[in-house]
Amino acid sequence: MTGIKQAGEKKLMLFSGRAYPDLAHEVARELRTEITPTELRDFASGEIYVRVAESVRGSDAFVIQCHTSPINTWIMEQLVMVDALKRASARRITVVAPFFGYARQDKKHRGREPISARLMADLFATAGADRIMTVDLHTAQIQGFFDGPVDHLHALPLLAEHVTRHMGTRRLTVVAPDAGRVRVAERWTDRLGCPLAIIHKRRDTERPNQVSVHEVVGDVAGRTCVIIDDMIDTGSTVVRAAEALTSRGATQVIAAATHGVFSGDAAERLAKADLAQLVITNTLPIPACFPSGKLIVLSIAPLLARAIGEVFREGSVTSLFEGES
Amino acid sequence: MTGIKQAGEKKLMLFSGRAYPDLAHEVARELRTEITPTELRDFASGEIYVRVAESVRGSDAFVIQCHTSPINTWIMEQLVMVDALKRASARRITVVAPFFGYARQDKKHRGREPISARLMADLFATAGADRIMTVDLHTAQIQGFFDGPVDHLHALPLLAEHVTRHMGTRRLTVVAPDAGRVRVAERWTDRLGCPLAIIHKRRDTERPNQVSVHEVVGDVAGRTCVIIDDMIDTGSTVVRAAEALTSRGATQVIAAATHGVFSGDAAERLAKADLAQLVITNTLPIPACFPSGKLIVLSIAPLLARAIGEVFREGSVTSLFEGES
Amino acid sequence: MTGIKQAGEKKLMLFSGRAYPDLAHEVARELRTEITPTELRDFASGEIYVRVAESVRGSDAFVIQCHTSPINTWIMEQLVMVDALKRASARRITVVAPFFGYARQDKKHRGREPISARLMADLFATAGADRIMTVDLHTAQIQGFFDGPVDHLHALPLLAEHVTRHMGTRRLTVVAPDAGRVRVAERWTDRLGCPLAIIHKRRDTERPNQVSVHEVVGDVAGRTCVIIDDMIDTGSTVVRAAEALTSRGATQVIAAATHGVFSGDAAERLAKADLAQLVITNTLPIPACFPSGKLIVLSIAPLLARAIGEVFREGSVTSLFEGES
Amino acid sequence: MTGIKQAGEKKLMLFSGRAYPDLAHEVARELRTEITPTELRDFASGEIYVRVAESVRGSDAFVIQCHTSPINTWIMEQLVMVDALKRASARRITVVAPFFGYARQDKKHRGREPISARLMADLFATAGADRIMTVDLHTAQIQGFFDGPVDHLHALPLLAEHVTRHMGTRRLTVVAPDAGRVRVAERWTDRLGCPLAIIHKRRDTERPNQVSVHEVVGDVAGRTCVIIDDMIDTGSTVVRAAEALTSRGATQVIAAATHGVFSGDAAERLAKADLAQLVITNTLPIPACFPSGKLIVLSIAPLLARAIGEVFREGSVTSLFEGES
Amino acid sequence: MTGIKQAGEKKLMLFSGRAYPDLAHEVARELRTEITPTELRDFASGEIYVRVAESVRGSDAFVIQCHTSPINTWIMEQLVMVDALKRASARRITVVAPFFGYARQDKKHRGREPISARLMADLFATAGADRIMTVDLHTAQIQGFFDGPVDHLHALPLLAEHVTRHMGTRRLTVVAPDAGRVRVAERWTDRLGCPLAIIHKRRDTERPNQVSVHEVVGDVAGRTCVIIDDMIDTGSTVVRAAEALTSRGATQVIAAATHGVFSGDAAERLAKADLAQLVITNTLPIPACFPSGKLIVLSIAPLLARAIGEVFREGSVTSLFEGES
Amino acid sequence: MTGIKQAGEKKLMLFSGRAYPDLAHEVARELRTEITPTELRDFASGEIYVRVAESVRGSDAFVIQCHTSPINTWIMEQLVMVDALKRASARRITVVAPFFGYARQDKKHRGREPISARLMADLFATAGADRIMTVDLHTAQIQGFFDGPVDHLHALPLLAEHVTRHMGTRRLTVVAPDAGRVRVAERWTDRLGCPLAIIHKRRDTERPNQVSVHEVVGDVAGRTCVIIDDMIDTGSTVVRAAEALTSRGATQVIAAATHGVFSGDAAERLAKADLAQLVITNTLPIPACFPSGKLIVLSIAPLLARAIGEVFREGSVTSLFEGES
Repeated sequence: MTGIKQAGEKKLMLFSGRAYPDLAHEVARELRTEITPTELRDFASGEIYVRVAESVRGSDAFVIQCHTSPINTWIMEQLVMVDALKRASARRITVVAPFFGYARQDKKHRGREPISARLMADLFATAGADRIMTVDLHTAQIQGFFDGPVDHLHALPLLAEHVTRHMGTRRLTVVAPDAGRVRVAERWTDRLGCPLAIIHKRRDTERPNQVSVHEVVGDVAGRTCVIIDDMIDTGSTVVRAAEALTSRGATQVIAAATHGVFSGDAAERLAKADLAQLVITNTLPIPACFPSGKLIVLSIAPLLARAIGEVFREGSVTSLFEGES
Repeated sequence: MTGIKQAGEKKLMLFSGRAYPDLAHEVARELRTEITPTELRDFASGEIYVRVAESVRGSDAFVIQCHTSPINTWIMEQLVMVDALKRASARRITVVAPFFGYARQDKKHRGREPISARLMADLFATAGADRIMTVDLHTAQIQGFFDGPVDHLHALPLLAEHVTRHMGTRRLTVVAPDAGRVRVAERWTDRLGCPLAIIHKRRDTERPNQVSVHEVVGDVAGRTCVIIDDMIDTGSTVVRAAEALTSRGATQVIAAATHGVFSGDAAERLAKADLAQLVITNTLPIPACFPSGKLIVLSIAPLLARAIGEVFREGSVTSLFEGES
Repeated sequence: MTGIKQAGEKKLMLFSGRAYPDLAHEVARELRTEITPTELRDFASGEIYVRVAESVRGSDAFVIQCHTSPINTWIMEQLVMVDALKRASARRITVVAPFFGYARQDKKHRGREPISARLMADLFATAGADRIMTVDLHTAQIQGFFDGPVDHLHALPLLAEHVTRHMGTRRLTVVAPDAGRVRVAERWTDRLGCPLAIIHKRRDTERPNQVSVHEVVGDVAGRTCVIIDDMIDTGSTVVRAAEALTSRGATQVIAAATHGVFSGDAAERLAKADLAQLVITNTLPIPACFPSGKLIVLSIAPLLARAIGEVFREGSVTSLFEGES
Repeated sequence: MTGIKQAGEKKLMLFSGRAYPDLAHEVARELRTEITPTELRDFASGEIYVRVAESVRGSDAFVIQCHTSPINTWIMEQLVMVDALKRASARRITVVAPFFGYARQDKKHRGREPISARLMADLFATAGADRIMTVDLHTAQIQGFFDGPVDHLHALPLLAEHVTRHMGTRRLTVVAPDAGRVRVAERWTDRLGCPLAIIHKRRDTERPNQVSVHEVVGDVAGRTCVIIDDMIDTGSTVVRAAEALTSRGATQVIAAATHGVFSGDAAERLAKADLAQLVITNTLPIPACFPSGKLIVLSIAPLLARAIGEVFREGSVTSLFEGES
Repeated sequence: MTGIKQAGEKKLMLFSGRAYPDLAHEVARELRTEITPTELRDFASGEIYVRVAESVRGSDAFVIQCHTSPINTWIMEQLVMVDALKRASARRITVVAPFFGYARQDKKHRGREPISARLMADLFATAGADRIMTVDLHTAQIQGFFDGPVDHLHALPLLAEHVTRHMGTRRLTVVAPDAGRVRVAERWTDRLGCPLAIIHKRRDTERPNQVSVHEVVGDVAGRTCVIIDDMIDTGSTVVRAAEALTSRGATQVIAAATHGVFSGDAAERLAKADLAQLVITNTLPIPACFPSGKLIVLSIAPLLARAIGEVFREGSVTSLFEGES
Repeated sequence: MTGIKQAGEKKLMLFSGRAYPDLAHEVARELRTEITPTELRDFASGEIYVRVAESVRGSDAFVIQCHTSPINTWIMEQLVMVDALKRASARRITVVAPFFGYARQDKKHRGREPISARLMADLFATAGADRIMTVDLHTAQIQGFFDGPVDHLHALPLLAEHVTRHMGTRRLTVVAPDAGRVRVAERWTDRLGCPLAIIHKRRDTERPNQVSVHEVVGDVAGRTCVIIDDMIDTGSTVVRAAEALTSRGATQVIAAATHGVFSGDAAERLAKADLAQLVITNTLPIPACFPSGKLIVLSIAPLLARAIGEVFREGSVTSLFEGES
């Protein structure tokens, strides 16, 4: 028989965009390796330039980028990095986006809107991504927007472990701050075995298109309330929920969320709110200006590192969540 | 200049599978046309045979099929019809699936599951569908599973109009029968201006994987409760919700849902339940055996016909929902 | 250089749908392994649920399903299984369909028909199949419907070996039961070195669209005739061929075919026919009710197992057929 | 409402490659139009240059090319023409290939062969073809190789009408010159109501890989035999069939085929053969050197023109064949 | 025959992103229509929100966006707009990018770089663009990056007409400021019939990776030199070219370019340079701060409007350039 | 856990078309292996037949074909070979085209032309090519026409090393024979540190569409001029450049190019020209008739072999060019 034979080998390589290199380096340290050096800069025109410094042929490449502000720039940078890796013959490319941008535009709320979350999934596929790894999508259905494997990790065990360690579960009520979060809240009540309340935004039929009442549905008087959400963006949802809960007699209010977007004056607003504690993870960089003491940041890096390791070694990612996905 | 010129013309043609021809014919009557004759039969081996009896070249084809039992057969029949129309040079093919099959498998609930709703969207695209028209998807995110226009119609105005005409809104409470339906319930409260309650399935932490309590969150005593859902399948969700509401002092309980799947002994179970009325539409055929009196069936055909007409004439489908989509 | 290296490894995994698990288990035994446990069930609505019980990351997955009755259900189940494996990061997915459904609809016989065999090939590709393995396609051209490797196995050596062992070849005539089977019949005469006859369906020009005469073209008087076909469906082709051969003086008539579809009352009809023996393989489950004695079932499992083994180890499948494909 | 409205219009344009412009011009004359001027030439390196001389925006373009010798050059020219039309914004592009090249490689006859007929279909799709129009494919399954509409025209009515007009049908026997043509031969016997014979190539089992006997299966003594085939290539199949028929007592032998490939010394060989007449169509250019008298060439242009007209006006092509396709 | 017929109609609609609405409105005025109202805003997180205010079903949509700073944001906005139009059933979508972003990354200059210009073309195709319209691509090959029609417009007639009107052509020398622009410069010399010079960047072999000499190749003493380029970015190329020309005895130096990117302190640098005039078009917004007098801005809007009109009416865009494309 | 495990292995296999087997065998020798036997022949009709003689499952296949005359035949042969390898389960297929055909049609020079270079890239992708390896593309942008890795090799080091060894660099001037080659010429001046001249084709404005003057821009008197080009086709560009240089006082003129196309009477014309030497590589077969002495042919096989080896072993191809690509 003709030909040349050789034993197969596989190689994991990590890459990081410029959005939040600290997190990427932390993941690399957990895996006892390093981020592969990559030249990344803007031309004067704002166009992004990428060049990977080492050969990546045949590698199992993981490209870590946080979709933080300026979000369009960082998404575009990740797309351009994936294109460079594809053309440099990486064997498999996994986009690691701890916070997946545009996830909230996951459906047409009204006619003639885009479905930007699907568009982002398609853009990554077009650039050459074979797989996506992310944490706590706004809705789990977004997994189905990508035509390939999605490793959907959950911060719930991390967050819940912190809450139960510090608060216990005896006097705890889990609060969904709006209708869209009730299902996630149920995952908390399932885990912690405590009751549920929800904040219901009721429109005033006499003043259309305006939310007039934030009703609390469920009992919260005398309870420690933990408001759960997938992300803190402007903070107004949490702030209003905390007000409503306090006015209904809650003893103490804390909030827990996976993603800290903290847009605009969110940090300031939350600092002033009647919140005992705000627990998040570092899927996005933490604004330096945030008033300390109140904010607890748990690192997502160990979870990402374990998942990347399992994907590379072809173990089970599902096993990381004890049966949940 | 060379060539032959001719004025453009467009032609709407309606096709129906064998799942529920009555609905298709009702849609055709509303549009003042007829279903195009199509030979549809099973070979002895169970394979489906399709042949369209008239030329369809250049037509704007709408293929109506209800994804009712035996659901895999009817989905396959619709796929085969779309293939036949594509190969016969139809200009544009819209799959009309009033109830979209496999919509509940819209995410991986656990590892190593399929996302069958995305798969179905892809199968229709592969067969040759350019567009999908459907009513009240299990989650609106499924729109994003199809890489093209989806006309997502809503039965809420139809159902709500019936409820308010018969019940008024003064003593009404809208009830979400589980966490996944709270967002839909809010659309009802927005429209009717009445309060919300939810049924919360709490697991017993001492008996894992078992729902032990169906808590009612919100006030229902002395109220007429309308349980809303997108579909009635086995009926157990509605039956248990009705029990919980009655035991918490609800005066009267009714249920409203778009799709009547009525699997297994659902009809029997619902007939016995403490429900004053069950309001649905005919997106699926109604089981003959259903005890009369209690079940109100509103026809979805006028809504489908108006939407098909707007699509053909390139008007606005969004306008059918008064701004919602 | 950055990164983590590791020796490559590959892993064969077998999966089976619910259509005919006995065959799959027989294949597994031949390969000295087991079918990977997979949860497979119908929701009350008839929608199929799949969940694979073990991690399949990086595996070389073979999904065995027989396209038997209810054929649309089993094809859909196989599609859903492939989707689940794709999303669970299987490295390569081979659809093993010993009998490939809808193979007879491999062209437009008349205008405005589908080409369902191509559609099925496309549906499997869309779900995520990288390869297809099948036995004796209705026409070999169907290989070209799939845009990837097709392992097209042949039962002829298995069937012919049985016939020659029991009948010898001296007084044998190979009979093509209709025009479409003459080419396959020539493969038999090439192998056995015996003469050919064909049954020719002649239409009566005065009674259009009606086959009035089944002419035997070729000499059969005083011969043992072996009617060959790719499949036995309703059985009427074989039954009429046997009648025609007997009336033309054949000493004995036997039939050999790869696939036993046995639709409707085929078993009964064949039992009564003037056939000394009917030889088939178990690419499809054998109806329990079939009258014994006359029916010889040869197992296709060893051939499938050898082909799967060669594909996994990257040997030659062609070599299994001694040069034929 | 914003925007500019205008009445729709459509425009048919015909294009011709350099393989056989006479046929294209004949088609244009039948349609009472002209071939759109197109610059077509070879660079010194053999690369083909194309430029269309008029605007084709929005046109319904039909690109006529005969896949005659040098076949790879003419196929490539047609691909390049399609690319030019796609990039020049033609609305719809139909590849008209009266003889479809590589059609005989429609399956893997042995392992590690290409399926070139599928490849050609894919190459045309990639270049930008929306539809294919062709005459008498080697096997009808090739329709399924293209993922879009294929207008598959048949020369049988044209050829059969000539044969019956000149020979009558009373003493006629239709002869399939090999196993692969029996199905086509049955279409002739169905139409003419006369008997069938076939030529069976039997291998000598003692001299493998060699066809030793050309048996005639069926009665031909005292009959006028019409050998039918889809194409005449080297002519050897027809010449040997004629010899076998004559030696078995046939009164007169004629041959009818759609495509006259006439490779190598086919013309010479057929001129010498014991054939009363050879009837073909001009789907391919007729070699000038062919000895006259014996060869009857029927024009396929009217059929192509009618089919192109129907496709443009969105009428029925199926109707051209009286129900066959 | 079944079905409903209606005369065809087509409708042009213009859309504009937020990058440079003035140009879009100028194009609309030229076409005597208006930009279709579209809601465009950023969420607090920086994610872009789009909603089109009118029905766009069946329209021929042109989406105008200038790829100016912040370039990634505006490209993403245009992608999201295209997605919204696709899902709202626009019939055809043309991306109008007067300056096409990332065009300079049109090849791998070194290993492991992306080809971002191809990536951008693919991203637009993925979002749903059917066609691209642009002006003076950095290299014409970029047309081939998009798998569909590209209307590539040229500002040369506009710029050259201005130059000859103000300078005459008698004492004019056209200067290519670097090797990559020589071909474009030849188009100017072809048109104006005047001589060519080029600036050649020679590296000092003793100081690698450093351009040490800007040689003028050709005669420029006593001539009016017009430096031509496709774009002015940092301005340094033009500034150094002007210095070199002046030092070699040029009487007067002007510069003409299609795109005014003006990154960083380009305006300031150019204001100080020894340039009599700088002629550009408004494919990009003009920095307000630019010192007046010296800068001549010609409007590209009439050219875009004529091209859009031709595309909509299916006339010839090529004819706009007198035979060039 | 279920399944069968085995160590991974990879296998390089080389294949050659019939265009220029000598080069392929030279590459094989460099890699110390052999070309895998493949049956390649034309049917009488001109259609190409391919069959690979050994199993290729799982192999890393490199298919070497020179796009020489008859170019369309050899491109088609390579496409058919790729299809055969894809269907025979090769793991990865690299098209090795030392000279990439149709590369000069890399843009629309005028309206309604094809972009044939993109079309060729797409045809190879459609047939099943995963990667392309080629030498000195006409323009580097063609890399971006293929949606995957392109190994773009350069003959410059090979050619330049020969020139400097024989001529020295002290009295050398590098000459670009037309505007399109100036950028390549700069790569030579960067490497050799010597001056540049260019030949500028100026049209006579009074005789449009006609090149009347071949101006030399830059100083060449008393210099040894090396005309560089990517390919020698008809030879007229080089011949005219040599004339212009000699008439401007050049001492000696040589020419260096990667590809020797030598169309028509190029060999004869170049033999007569005032050229001291013509240096090329064997990316294309060398016409036997070429007058010896003057023509130096350097072998490209070692470069191809090293690149193929690096790709197989997943090393760095970039490193072969000392940082250039």
